Amino acid sequence: MPDDFEQMWTDLAPVGRSAATTGYFRQPFGAAERECHAWFVEQCRLRGLRVEHDGNGNTVGWWEPVGGIVPRERHHAEPEARADHVGLSGAGAVLTGSHLDSVLDGGAYDGPLGVVSALAAIDVLRDRGFLPGRPVGVAAFAEEEGSRFGLACLGSRLAVGVTGAEQARGLADRDGVRLEDAMAAAGLEPDLGRSGWLDRVGCYLELHVEQGRDLVDREQPVGVASAIWPHGRYRFDFTGEANHAGTTRMEDRHDPMLTYAMTALAANKQARLAGQRATFGRLDVTPNGTNAVPSRVTAWLDARCETEEVLAELVAAIERQACDRADRDGTALTVTAESVSSAVHFDGGLIERLGRGRPVIPTAAGHDAGILATAGVPSAMLFVRNPTGVSHSPEERAEAGDCHAGVQALADALQDLAEEQP
Amino acid sequence: MPDDFEQMWTDLAPVGRSAATTGYFRQPFGAAERECHAWFVEQCRLRGLRVEHDGNGNTVGWWEPVGGIVPRERHHAEPEARADHVGLSGAGAVLTGSHLDSVLDGGAYDGPLGVVSALAAIDVLRDRGFLPGRPVGVAAFAEEEGSRFGLACLGSRLAVGVTGAEQARGLADRDGVRLEDAMAAAGLEPDLGRSGWLDRVGCYLELHVEQGRDLVDREQPVGVASAIWPHGRYRFDFTGEANHAGTTRMEDRHDPMLTYAMTALAANKQARLAGQRATFGRLDVTPNGTNAVPSRVTAWLDARCETEEVLAELVAAIERQACDRADRDGTALTVTAESVSSAVHFDGGLIERLGRGRPVIPTAAGHDAGILATAGVPSAMLFVRNPTGVSHSPEERAEAGDCHAGVQALADALQDLAEEQP
Repeated sequence: MPDDFEQMWTDLAPVGRSAATTGYFRQPFGAAERECHAWFVEQCRLRGLRVEHDGNGNTVGWWEPVGGIVPRERHHAEPEARADHVGLSGAGAVLTGSHLDSVLDGGAYDGPLGVVSALAAIDVLRDRGFLPGRPVGVAAFAEEEGSRFGLACLGSRLAVGVTGAEQARGLADRDGVRLEDAMAAAGLEPDLGRSGWLDRVGCYLELHVEQGRDLVDREQPVGVASAIWPHGRYRFDFTGEANHAGTTRMEDRHDPMLTYAMTALAANKQARLAGQRATFGRLDVTPNGTNAVPSRVTAWLDARCETEEVLAELVAAIERQACDRADRDGTALTVTAESVSSAVHFDGGLIERLGRGRPVIPTAAGHDAGILATAGVPSAMLFVRNPTGVSHSPEERAEAGDCHAGVQALADALQDLAEEQP
Repeated sequence: MPDDFEQMWTDLAPVGRSAATTGYFRQPFGAAERECHAWFVEQCRLRGLRVEHDGNGNTVGWWEPVGGIVPRERHHAEPEARADHVGLSGAGAVLTGSHLDSVLDGGAYDGPLGVVSALAAIDVLRDRGFLPGRPVGVAAFAEEEGSRFGLACLGSRLAVGVTGAEQARGLADRDGVRLEDAMAAAGLEPDLGRSGWLDRVGCYLELHVEQGRDLVDREQPVGVASAIWPHGRYRFDFTGEANHAGTTRMEDRHDPMLTYAMTALAANKQARLAGQRATFGRLDVTPNGTNAVPSRVTAWLDARCETEEVLAELVAAIERQACDRADRDGTALTVTAESVSSAVHFDGGLIERLGRGRPVIPTAAGHDAGILATAGVPSAMLFVRNPTGVSHSPEERAEAGDCHAGVQALADALQDLAEEQP
């Protein structure tokens, strides 16, 4: 296994990597991400997995049990069966995987670690002589980061139907390219909407590099996710009065940059005091000229908290401070909640199967596993230790030994879940 | 005069105006600015002015005295003659004008008011039956705002040689288009470097809409500029550590956005306390993603003060506060002075000729008149009242009555200066 595993990383290492920053630029449906995707399809074919594309840009490679595919109709007739079982629907396939896209200047592991580990886990199971009693699928979900079309987990959202085709058709990237046009330009045939493969899925397991330092602090290579914190994205539109930066007396200004600056500091302070998370990492300034007092500053708040109540309180506190400052600056503020996700609690039965003495920890990052869980698919996650704790950055790391431990944990879980015939 | 004057505004009103904001987008060598330029050439031809283009994108329409053009060689031989005369070199032409480009989403008057008023002043003088004893030129300078290539007064800087051709060739706009390529794409034949027409210029008068509320406070339609404040542009590069906005604990972050935010507030406070000007109006955030703690924030400080000493103190105070905060945030800061201009004092003799009871006021805005003054051409400016005091914005205004008063003042000054034969 280690040889094939290393080879997969060697294959992926140069794709979309910036020589300047060593970070990855794998934007959904862009050249680098497509190259990763083609590589994934090739890896599935090398392993004899049946490759299934849906119209949302997601791809699944299926390892079918001897005797063929479980007929789709059967599951269609019994969708409620899923909820009746702890950790696995009675008749369903075991899905694993992750995504191949990256944020702008991201790390090597966020996404690809889950896909590569899934393929490696199948290699491990075959080396063990294991024959699955149920189908095992390896998924590569599209646009998980939301870094191009602004909606995280877009591929899985469309697959399970929590985002509809109509809404997705309205999405465009920063250059105004619409989702379907981007997909068509990448040679895909978009057919947005609920994915047919979902009907055969009994549970979903996602392995992911940890995006924090919990496992470092606990000195553990692998952990299990308990839940995803509630998460909101809010657009703050600060409007003032454009003016000449040289000639306008300070006291005559209505400068929205000042209101924004105070708000960014307030968000940090409030989150720090409450032990939660609040970040202004994206800004759009109009007209963004050196010699112009801006007319408008649009800033996006990313906030994540232990509970939905705490999230609502945190955002309200930030907005209150922002409005007070806007009054002083003679500017105006409107706040729009662009998306607010509830907490996701992963499946208790799956957590138990995966736990085996491993630490069980919450996360404040969204994942495709959270979307599938929300849609009623029993789901769970494994985290692999990240020595730097840093993610969405070239500084993200994972040690080979920890990655191998992750593959073994995933292989054990797949074997456990897929060995019984439905 | 009023009819022709109104017609000129009617001609220019729709060119490059945004229906959404009512602001103007007349970027140098772009379609809208070129349309204004073609209109200017046509207006010169309608008035029988001889049109002279230089290789820097500047154009002058010449009203020659009866008896022909003063030979260029003569002035070449006596350049020092300029400094020996109060307000007018012994043998030179009287130049007036301004610029036709705008900032992004600028007002109707900043630039065009000086060009239109110059043409209208010639109409007034002809209606009076005036025949000039010296050449009178109307100039339209290129890229005065610096909004495309980042260097304000680029056309006049090249014309007088304070910016060399080599430096200008290195300039590119935000899309990476180089100055010469932009000029060529607009159908010009770039030949960067000192302009031949400069040799015949004895003095320069520029009429401009006021970019503040001094004339409103004094209830005067027209004023005269005394000086331009020293002015600096400084790039602040704040660097931290990119990270995931959800999973990274607040205490584990090195977020340059926070350091920037505190610095923007500090700049405003320091400038307010000192009665000077400091603005952060332009920002560049990396990677600028909603769910990413930024790795870098680059911000440009525009600072203008009464004296160079006060400017240096203000910038040092801002930098000190920024560095203190960077220490707390675990971020780093480098400050680069991109340009620092000394104070410009306009010509005492010209100010006296223009004054005639009008208020004499300083400005903190740069102008082509400042560049020509720096290069030794006796120069002065007239300001026309702006009821809103706002500029670089669609809110910029000028009342018709005040504009007419400006044209009369300019016509009187041109008559005064041009009536004597050299």
